[in-house]
Amino acid sequence: MSDKKHLGICYYPEHWSEDLWQQDAKEMAALGITYVRIAEFAWSRIEPEPGHFSWDWLDSAIETLASEGLKIVMCTPTATPPRWMVDKHPDMLAVDENGHPRKFGSRRHYCFSHEGYRWESRRITEILAERYGNHQSIAAWQTDNEYGCHETVRSWSASAHKAFQLWLAQKYGNIKALNEAWGNVFWSMEYNSFEQVDLPNLTVTESNPSHRLDFKRFSSDQVAEFNGEQVDILRKLSPGRPIIHNFMGNTFSFDHYKVGDQLDISSWDCYPIGFHSQYQMENPLGTPEGYWEDYFQQGDPDYQAFHHDLYRQAGHGRLWIMELQPGPVNWAPYNPIPLKGMVRLWSWEAFAHGAETTSYFRWRQAPFAQEQMHAGLKQTDNKPAQAYVEAAQVAREIEELGAFTPSEAPVALVVDYESHWAHETQQQGQDFSYFRLVLAYYRALRQKGVDVEIIRPASQDLSPYKLVIVPALYAMSEELSENLAAYIEFGGVVLGGPRLAQKDKNYQISQKTLNLPKPFEAIEVLRVGTSPKEFATTVSDLADQERGKAYVWQEEVTTGLPILFEDTNDHPVFMGENNIYYVSAWADPALMSAILDEVFKAAKIDKVELPNGLRRSKTSIGTFYYNYSKNKMNLKALRLADAAELDGLELPPAGVALVREGTEEL
Amino acid sequence: MSDKKHLGICYYPEHWSEDLWQQDAKEMAALGITYVRIAEFAWSRIEPEPGHFSWDWLDSAIETLASEGLKIVMCTPTATPPRWMVDKHPDMLAVDENGHPRKFGSRRHYCFSHEGYRWESRRITEILAERYGNHQSIAAWQTDNEYGCHETVRSWSASAHKAFQLWLAQKYGNIKALNEAWGNVFWSMEYNSFEQVDLPNLTVTESNPSHRLDFKRFSSDQVAEFNGEQVDILRKLSPGRPIIHNFMGNTFSFDHYKVGDQLDISSWDCYPIGFHSQYQMENPLGTPEGYWEDYFQQGDPDYQAFHHDLYRQAGHGRLWIMELQPGPVNWAPYNPIPLKGMVRLWSWEAFAHGAETTSYFRWRQAPFAQEQMHAGLKQTDNKPAQAYVEAAQVAREIEELGAFTPSEAPVALVVDYESHWAHETQQQGQDFSYFRLVLAYYRALRQKGVDVEIIRPASQDLSPYKLVIVPALYAMSEELSENLAAYIEFGGVVLGGPRLAQKDKNYQISQKTLNLPKPFEAIEVLRVGTSPKEFATTVSDLADQERGKAYVWQEEVTTGLPILFEDTNDHPVFMGENNIYYVSAWADPALMSAILDEVFKAAKIDKVELPNGLRRSKTSIGTFYYNYSKNKMNLKALRLADAAELDGLELPPAGVALVREGTEEL
Amino acid sequence: MSDKKHLGICYYPEHWSEDLWQQDAKEMAALGITYVRIAEFAWSRIEPEPGHFSWDWLDSAIETLASEGLKIVMCTPTATPPRWMVDKHPDMLAVDENGHPRKFGSRRHYCFSHEGYRWESRRITEILAERYGNHQSIAAWQTDNEYGCHETVRSWSASAHKAFQLWLAQKYGNIKALNEAWGNVFWSMEYNSFEQVDLPNLTVTESNPSHRLDFKRFSSDQVAEFNGEQVDILRKLSPGRPIIHNFMGNTFSFDHYKVGDQLDISSWDCYPIGFHSQYQMENPLGTPEGYWEDYFQQGDPDYQAFHHDLYRQAGHGRLWIMELQPGPVNWAPYNPIPLKGMVRLWSWEAFAHGAETTSYFRWRQAPFAQEQMHAGLKQTDNKPAQAYVEAAQVAREIEELGAFTPSEAPVALVVDYESHWAHETQQQGQDFSYFRLVLAYYRALRQKGVDVEIIRPASQDLSPYKLVIVPALYAMSEELSENLAAYIEFGGVVLGGPRLAQKDKNYQISQKTLNLPKPFEAIEVLRVGTSPKEFATTVSDLADQERGKAYVWQEEVTTGLPILFEDTNDHPVFMGENNIYYVSAWADPALMSAILDEVFKAAKIDKVELPNGLRRSKTSIGTFYYNYSKNKMNLKALRLADAAELDGLELPPAGVALVREGTEEL
Repeated sequence: MSDKKHLGICYYPEHWSEDLWQQDAKEMAALGITYVRIAEFAWSRIEPEPGHFSWDWLDSAIETLASEGLKIVMCTPTATPPRWMVDKHPDMLAVDENGHPRKFGSRRHYCFSHEGYRWESRRITEILAERYGNHQSIAAWQTDNEYGCHETVRSWSASAHKAFQLWLAQKYGNIKALNEAWGNVFWSMEYNSFEQVDLPNLTVTESNPSHRLDFKRFSSDQVAEFNGEQVDILRKLSPGRPIIHNFMGNTFSFDHYKVGDQLDISSWDCYPIGFHSQYQMENPLGTPEGYWEDYFQQGDPDYQAFHHDLYRQAGHGRLWIMELQPGPVNWAPYNPIPLKGMVRLWSWEAFAHGAETTSYFRWRQAPFAQEQMHAGLKQTDNKPAQAYVEAAQVAREIEELGAFTPSEAPVALVVDYESHWAHETQQQGQDFSYFRLVLAYYRALRQKGVDVEIIRPASQDLSPYKLVIVPALYAMSEELSENLAAYIEFGGVVLGGPRLAQKDKNYQISQKTLNLPKPFEAIEVLRVGTSPKEFATTVSDLADQERGKAYVWQEEVTTGLPILFEDTNDHPVFMGENNIYYVSAWADPALMSAILDEVFKAAKIDKVELPNGLRRSKTSIGTFYYNYSKNKMNLKALRLADAAELDGLELPPAGVALVREGTEEL
Repeated sequence: MSDKKHLGICYYPEHWSEDLWQQDAKEMAALGITYVRIAEFAWSRIEPEPGHFSWDWLDSAIETLASEGLKIVMCTPTATPPRWMVDKHPDMLAVDENGHPRKFGSRRHYCFSHEGYRWESRRITEILAERYGNHQSIAAWQTDNEYGCHETVRSWSASAHKAFQLWLAQKYGNIKALNEAWGNVFWSMEYNSFEQVDLPNLTVTESNPSHRLDFKRFSSDQVAEFNGEQVDILRKLSPGRPIIHNFMGNTFSFDHYKVGDQLDISSWDCYPIGFHSQYQMENPLGTPEGYWEDYFQQGDPDYQAFHHDLYRQAGHGRLWIMELQPGPVNWAPYNPIPLKGMVRLWSWEAFAHGAETTSYFRWRQAPFAQEQMHAGLKQTDNKPAQAYVEAAQVAREIEELGAFTPSEAPVALVVDYESHWAHETQQQGQDFSYFRLVLAYYRALRQKGVDVEIIRPASQDLSPYKLVIVPALYAMSEELSENLAAYIEFGGVVLGGPRLAQKDKNYQISQKTLNLPKPFEAIEVLRVGTSPKEFATTVSDLADQERGKAYVWQEEVTTGLPILFEDTNDHPVFMGENNIYYVSAWADPALMSAILDEVFKAAKIDKVELPNGLRRSKTSIGTFYYNYSKNKMNLKALRLADAAELDGLELPPAGVALVREGTEEL
Repeated sequence: MSDKKHLGICYYPEHWSEDLWQQDAKEMAALGITYVRIAEFAWSRIEPEPGHFSWDWLDSAIETLASEGLKIVMCTPTATPPRWMVDKHPDMLAVDENGHPRKFGSRRHYCFSHEGYRWESRRITEILAERYGNHQSIAAWQTDNEYGCHETVRSWSASAHKAFQLWLAQKYGNIKALNEAWGNVFWSMEYNSFEQVDLPNLTVTESNPSHRLDFKRFSSDQVAEFNGEQVDILRKLSPGRPIIHNFMGNTFSFDHYKVGDQLDISSWDCYPIGFHSQYQMENPLGTPEGYWEDYFQQGDPDYQAFHHDLYRQAGHGRLWIMELQPGPVNWAPYNPIPLKGMVRLWSWEAFAHGAETTSYFRWRQAPFAQEQMHAGLKQTDNKPAQAYVEAAQVAREIEELGAFTPSEAPVALVVDYESHWAHETQQQGQDFSYFRLVLAYYRALRQKGVDVEIIRPASQDLSPYKLVIVPALYAMSEELSENLAAYIEFGGVVLGGPRLAQKDKNYQISQKTLNLPKPFEAIEVLRVGTSPKEFATTVSDLADQERGKAYVWQEEVTTGLPILFEDTNDHPVFMGENNIYYVSAWADPALMSAILDEVFKAAKIDKVELPNGLRRSKTSIGTFYYNYSKNKMNLKALRLADAAELDGLELPPAGVALVREGTEEL
């Protein structure tokens, strides 16, 4: 591994006449592409009938690509088992929450808990790894494809039911322990044996939250187990090749850290525009009026960076973009044409956030099937599309800029998958979403030009950071609690809340096991009120100056810490001093900005208020600026820089600049 | 029974270490609590395995409570059959409208028509009644818990199907009679036998409304039959103890009058804040802009009183509040913290409307399972919560004020469950809701400071009332029709409409069987137009002065009565003279107020326009005023009173005043 | 057939005492009714038990009607098989997309692919045709009733599954051809045999669009096959009687042209007010703010005419209205009372658009079952309703005006059912609806006072038209392509786009098979952006004058044709010259109007901007004007006519005028 940046491409030789392959490979190489990902959906071509394999085409495709010097990312094809597989294992299909099998006819039609399909997954992985594992052009492996996409982590099948009971038996040992952990006495929900435990769907009213949370943990573990089986085989049979999985964005249904621990490199599939519409249409909490339209063709300015930082953490620092949106796609509610230049902007933002390789999806637009309206670098008629031009520019710029890495960030933000499951299990107010809250913190930090390291809710070295933020961690381990306490003791600044460690790991409110870090014990949460985001409460500082609003989640607390901001009912909303701060509500953007300003002072963090749509990231060669807005931005006029490379000081819409150290104004 | 008021508490000894019980009991007694309700969810602790009982803990809990002088309300635990019951009777689960069994894992997971479960219900009732029926501390019984909660009245199971066919056979005698009653000739829907009659779900388009209405009647009857079986056993084995059921609010899926007829006391579970959000989020018809937010932390000022009066009728005058909201709860879409003082306000409003006992739910917040975010009088850490303080104040005030009863109301409002089912079966316009219309009348009356007696759609003595209002009674019995005609003849004033008795009991439009009271035959409804509430029509009096708007439901009528108000198309909207008045549309609040003003004149009823959020109720010791608003209200300045007790003339938000007779200005 | 206009009525003798029949018949005749449709829902009365027939009542009803000179439209009763049929064929029920059988209890409860029910359909048709086929009073036949109503075309039953596999086998011959046509290689969706092909429901994510499109084609074909079987029998056994089916409005799920080809006369069931609310509540794209309320009691001014013209095409020029709304109905979300006069207006508009007979639904309002709130010409109490009066007026006016036919229209609009299925299969932006777009063109044309001929997407004589408009035809046959090219060559003007022939018949983007008419090859669509209708782009002409807005669907094109309008990003939106024009976006009403103005100049079509709510149609005896608005319209003041019959120059709301040739101003 060097820090040199690379381009990649997703390619489907099986979709095209073999006549095109050589020319395609030549053009890829000429464009500056290093990696070609293949075969993740090709199982029906590799094994057209059970046990009958067809290797010629794939051998030939590999040789053709290799002949142009391209390196291959080979995939296990388990996201798309062929139709005959369903005849062989009729109960391998996942089952939806209403009890309907999720049928063959698209992709990801398998239940992670089905033993027969698990066997097939290991079998095909072995066969592929044996055949290509030591091929010199096979540079890396991808396992499966986009775990969790199309809400496929949780299955309510008989296989899942049985596996869940086993998982519970292993976790709890005896049924009494489970009954106690879940509080099943509550509505006479006590079980006499693990065999009596149902899946938590289709109950009369909500099922026990502990039951649901365990089912979500179980489902997440099944993904890791499935992936781990493939990883073990690949590691053995294809030594020296990094193993990657391409995570999907906007997917919080399994613990990416656990899967990431099995991988060498974390990667993700980055579709900024579709994610933006989904976010804005579901619940645009924390973004101003008009935000959807303002970034309709660019994507949310913070969503990509958030995922880069999140998945870089999952990969313990190693990140790829396995699929990058190259133009309009087909799957979002609305699919606009990206603003000219955005493909390049997204590429550079990914590199600046640590991506080693950015790979575009896909080489040429498919003329058939589900994604025929999904752009590629080339059109269906083989003419170059807009993204081709932008990718070529990125390739040239990679050569110019050379190797670099992200700078160390001053702020660490704790992000936890279990907290998302816990809070969605009991929202308490229907606008509450853990990931929206975490993103709100991330957004506020980036708006101030500050880089963020996303960290796990685990014991770790916090000394690199000036500030650690812990929003809405539903439960805290003893280790993390001690870790934070020590960090505070040695001068680190911690901002916590709201909804901080108010449950224990069993999803109970047990005074004994909440594990709040000692300094936070000064705060006692008496009760909580939730409200629609429209019913906001004004929050002011002690000089009675309005600083923003609180909504969605508001705790009534007593505190031993100095109160800094309070609401119109004189309830403390923001409190703290020296190294420890707590916010007891969901802060709107203005309030969150005000809170960060206070905490930054304590933590001695520099900041600048970036204009809407301008974002930046520091790297070892300087600071990258990205203009997500539809207006020009002058870095000089903004007093951000005296000189800039790439697009220079006058950034057009979708423009990117690199400001070298020493030419920064701030 | 005396008219002295009492406090109660819902307590779950099985949720807590036995160490806490004695202290809990002591504190309850000290707080002024009389009744402790226990065991309604304790079946799995009473009978952990089929036929194996565990009595020690329950005996001990009862003795502990009794030792502090507390009286017990013992419950049948049939709302939460244990998990082993489902192994014993796998088909006992209710089935939802889509055919999915409603699984174990929460509560109310049984079908009222399942014979096996019926047997189990009788069995456990007998066992409990035999054990505790003559215990001196057992002061009353509660059957089951919140019939109908979580939409559990109607089940589409095989058991329900079979029971429905039997019910129909008993009702109609022969299939020809059913075919005629339903008009099955309409789309060749005729049956040759009762065995052919399906449940009315999953049909291609809407099923026959008569079919659906009978299914709703049947489902309601099953609840009464189920309850009746428990009542019979309790009456026999526990003589002298009143039998109560705790009805849920906002539940119109079964006939509470029929169940009420089996009980000694009617009670209900009063959660003002959750009901308010539900109502406002579903269809805030008839409430002004901002109403949701204005009463977000207090509840709708008319919703509690409406239920008090409704369920007092169901209990033939005897009413308890079995569960009163003590703080934020967990189950509503949003769960705010009640305004300080509201728990007390709700308590006094309940007493003024005839509640003998108000019982808070629950003693201490549970630290686990579904309701762990539901407040209690005490926090999970056993510290008193805000409601503890307010309950203590209520206890003191009960002592000060002594016994009292509601005054006789000048207005009777006919409320009918079947009409709700009939109108929801064929809304004709999708904003139409019978209970919303009835509540709109109730609200308008209360806004004018007038007390209301809710009465049944049956023959009864109407002489106590100056005015009887009959909104949207879908069908009228001959008895009621004659009853009303006689009442009118002897000087009583009746306001009817809209949608009055336009069907017969078979849900047909039969000229012969509509049974309109004679005086109303002067009105002929030609046809009906429905519209969204946004498309309102202006209504004016004969002096062309605008009096309000009509929407949702507008009849085109010819009338022999003098027209008082008409719409811009010169259609009569309000007509009548002397003792008989008819309104042919859904009146918006302004129009309804104007109509009542006219009718009040005829009926010689005094009124006052209360400011928003101020409500009052007359009792034998004076008039209670409640301030539901967030602003102070001065009763003197409002010219309502010269002197007041409790919070006095200057009512703070959530304040309560008692104005003794002689000190009233109006 | 003469061109004389007739009235008809839908009558249900089985719903009424036989005592009423003679009087009913007399009154019908007196009212001026010619045709009486009977028996379409009477199967349970004709065959009360399997194989046992009851003919007396029907014989008697027919004789009674005949005795008054009325002609009978006899129906096959297959839309409502009796309950015993479901015992005989338990799997005859259609199955919904979630796998639930669509149960007995309303109507249309059969799967078109069920062989047993097909046999029953042929059996009952034969029996009826044998009995009444040569009866002198049987003037015509109606097959079944409203195919497709209640979304009944597509069934996910086992019968449908098997029939679909056979249909595919017949279409593709071998499975390899299917795999290629669908592009099944895409996600390893390849099949090894037709037996493996599932129905495209309940897949994990969207199924292959080619798969779905074929399933829609198959489902449509099943309707035609079902209907064809009845038609064959009727033609043989009841010679000389025209065969009709009553299509439903707002139904695009099967190809009405194919069914129309089997019939002698096309008819439809016209319920203007319900359709209007449905359209406005779903997605009021292309109608101004307030449109719903403005036409709430009249119906959309263009919706009826559009269907008349569409179904007249399906009937190769012969059209009836089999059911016309007579007053408020029961089935729409809201059911207002029609503005006085609308029943007459709708009648005349139908006649002017070629209806030979307009038949009202129904004679007398039913007092029972699903449609008891559906008006008739008479009330349930047998008094005449408002529609009775209006029908009588229409009858008189028919006599006055005599025979006439629609004039030849200058504009042809290509409308294609497959395109609707194709575009709903892949909307690409969720506001896209083919029929909404087609209606937008139709509306814009009618707003300019221009008559429209709706034509099929097939080879045909285009010489009668000055202009042919081809919006969003998803794929083009070679014949149509050549046809259009020839039409252009000989001077015809064609306006195409957007989304024109961008797929081939297999739903692939194949450069070779797109069959764009040669002149349109000057336009290359590079890519497409979709957006919510709220995000509109301003479009201006070359003089930079704003002409309207583009939204929903916007193509990025290169063009060899002169650009006429472009958007603010300088993308061509409207281009063309001489005989060929293309619009690359969904044009809002203003833009569409501007585009038509330009094209009209080239095509030499006269136009007038009609005020909102005024519409007109030219016939052989003059031009009919209809006032859909709530305001008076003066044709003289509008400079439209100097003299007018029927309601004259000053048209009241709901007024109709006939302007004879020579008295027109324009």
